[in-house]
Amino acid sequence: MKANPVFSLYIPTKLIFGCGEIKKLSSEKLPGKKALVVISSGTSMRKYGYLEKVLAQLRLNHVETLVYDKILPNPIKEHVMEAAGICREEKCDFVVGLGGGSSIDSAKSIAVMACNDGDYWDYVSGGSGKGRPVSKALPIIAIPTTAGTGTEMDPWTVITHETAQEKIGFGCQLTFPTLSIVDPELMVSIPPHLTAYQGFDAFFHAAEGFIANCATPISDLYALEAIRLIYKYLPVAVADGKNLKARAKIAWASTLAGMVEATSSCTSEHSLEHAMSAYYPQLPHGAGLIALSEAYFETFRHDCTKRYMKMAEVMTQKKSNRSSDFIDALITLQKECKVHPVKLSEFGIQPEDFPKFLQNARDTMGGLFTLDPRPITDEEILHVFEKSYK
Amino acid sequence: MKANPVFSLYIPTKLIFGCGEIKKLSSEKLPGKKALVVISSGTSMRKYGYLEKVLAQLRLNHVETLVYDKILPNPIKEHVMEAAGICREEKCDFVVGLGGGSSIDSAKSIAVMACNDGDYWDYVSGGSGKGRPVSKALPIIAIPTTAGTGTEMDPWTVITHETAQEKIGFGCQLTFPTLSIVDPELMVSIPPHLTAYQGFDAFFHAAEGFIANCATPISDLYALEAIRLIYKYLPVAVADGKNLKARAKIAWASTLAGMVEATSSCTSEHSLEHAMSAYYPQLPHGAGLIALSEAYFETFRHDCTKRYMKMAEVMTQKKSNRSSDFIDALITLQKECKVHPVKLSEFGIQPEDFPKFLQNARDTMGGLFTLDPRPITDEEILHVFEKSYK
Repeated sequence: MKANPVFSLYIPTKLIFGCGEIKKLSSEKLPGKKALVVISSGTSMRKYGYLEKVLAQLRLNHVETLVYDKILPNPIKEHVMEAAGICREEKCDFVVGLGGGSSIDSAKSIAVMACNDGDYWDYVSGGSGKGRPVSKALPIIAIPTTAGTGTEMDPWTVITHETAQEKIGFGCQLTFPTLSIVDPELMVSIPPHLTAYQGFDAFFHAAEGFIANCATPISDLYALEAIRLIYKYLPVAVADGKNLKARAKIAWASTLAGMVEATSSCTSEHSLEHAMSAYYPQLPHGAGLIALSEAYFETFRHDCTKRYMKMAEVMTQKKSNRSSDFIDALITLQKECKVHPVKLSEFGIQPEDFPKFLQNARDTMGGLFTLDPRPITDEEILHVFEKSYK
Repeated sequence: MKANPVFSLYIPTKLIFGCGEIKKLSSEKLPGKKALVVISSGTSMRKYGYLEKVLAQLRLNHVETLVYDKILPNPIKEHVMEAAGICREEKCDFVVGLGGGSSIDSAKSIAVMACNDGDYWDYVSGGSGKGRPVSKALPIIAIPTTAGTGTEMDPWTVITHETAQEKIGFGCQLTFPTLSIVDPELMVSIPPHLTAYQGFDAFFHAAEGFIANCATPISDLYALEAIRLIYKYLPVAVADGKNLKARAKIAWASTLAGMVEATSSCTSEHSLEHAMSAYYPQLPHGAGLIALSEAYFETFRHDCTKRYMKMAEVMTQKKSNRSSDFIDALITLQKECKVHPVKLSEFGIQPEDFPKFLQNARDTMGGLFTLDPRPITDEEILHVFEKSYK
């Protein structure tokens, strides 16, 4: 980052944050009278009563609702297209994404396809996407029940094209949620290992955004605070999911890391992980990132020494004088969160897959490679996969 | 602030920041084809070529412009009403505020009155204002040439009603600028004493916002970074106005402090200062705040000890163990910026004025008193004025 940086800041989303704040859904001015509520195909939104809570608040606000409940953990284009069709037929005014990143990202993409003709991949950039401009979308409301993606405060949505085996991020000004409600009380039911995976996703949004060559004074502020909070509170939230203070701190850190995504960017670690889960949809995104992380961050350790030391300092609250302090702190955090080591072999990934991952990452999310601290070579990438394997 | 705070964040303004970034005005998508450009009645916008620069960039963007150049340092309602009339007659699509807070605040109020009937004071809350709701306003573009008010990233506008002797802050979602361009190169011409006054205005936005009882995790992040930057770079910018690095750091700190205003609030120090300059328009806002500050912050020193220590720590970069460290650092900063002491008597203010100031502050901006760390008594307020007098 330059001494006199040039940067911009634009996050038009209204964020409402706090325990119990889901109730505000009944009193906020909403962008219409009929909503499609998008949730995952899993059972948790109903089991824990979150869906009923949201539907009840919307009813109090005189909003008619429909529920689309087919979203997969790695959400797919087919569901985006199907739900967008429902939005059109049923004349929905806005889309509510309730759940993890998959449901909220899907809600964003559904909001786009409810207003634009053709196929979703006509609008995606990268891979076989055609990159058509998007000029309108339905308003989006995001209600996360996980703390990891930060999608509630950024414009990004990541959808998988199954037949093309492409998992690509997309976003524009119209895919910022209009309103996001982050209520940590909706997060107490997440089991420990998922709490850790999701928390590390947020951590890497912040850490990658901090070493990205497009980092700015505002993204740095968000990133360092997210990193500090995750280091301090993620082990607590993993150990005791009912600890509302820790849940709230991690929820806020994740939202801050989303604001890093909106003002800086992920780097190629995310491209590599997306490629892996395009082929292995059962690989949780956070687990893939954790597996890659030690070797990935080792790659750039000598390229942004001061930034590694700064991250180490906010984590350990001790003066750092070498960049490896950050790697050490990262491993400490993984151990404290019971996710060390995570190895790619655990998820059925084979070394033969590595060249294919590399190619897919460069093809579908090549843009992020230009934001790394310096260009990473193919050889280095293969080395990262190998180190992360077993 | 509570352990599990409930808060919201909404700053829909698009910010473009950096040296030379004024050029983006020619390529950004603007909200229309005809603009009223609002500047002060002083000579600097023309003398330093800032007005011509802005008009040229707007022309390149195919925008027709009119200039309104009567705004006073403490801007008045009459000018808001006159310029709003011009907007209507000339069918302007948007309003550009170019200059210090007075021009940008006026642009906001003009944008409101260009779309609403009656008098501006019909919409203001407090004093003799009638508090009518505002449902529309023209889009606003803010281009600050001073680093102090932060108005480019908050919804607030402070206008004086001369005959009623009321200086009142007003704002709503519609008075956030649509676009703000902060170009530190437009700030190099500010003389040292004004650089200091304006920088301290920003400092107090951050410091008051940090001790306000409505402070939140996001306003704290903005506030501490603004305080850190101002302590480090304001003496440099005062000593050498051509130092672009220092100008950029202070410009960014001021913008951050505006974001504190949008997410927390000033406290009653600002009410007291507004009352003084409602009666003594020649008193620069920043000078008034500096004069009040030592006694004002002394008042709450035992009410938020930890927050005073935290501010002292980001200023001095040393561990603090007593709240008076903040007051000491504040005085050090004032001395380094050659604005210590500033006394009310220098501006013709008389001790007989104090009860009138007190009453005016409570009447016109009473709301801020409810946000102080604890309720301040009339006796304490009079004591602050007395200590600041001579």
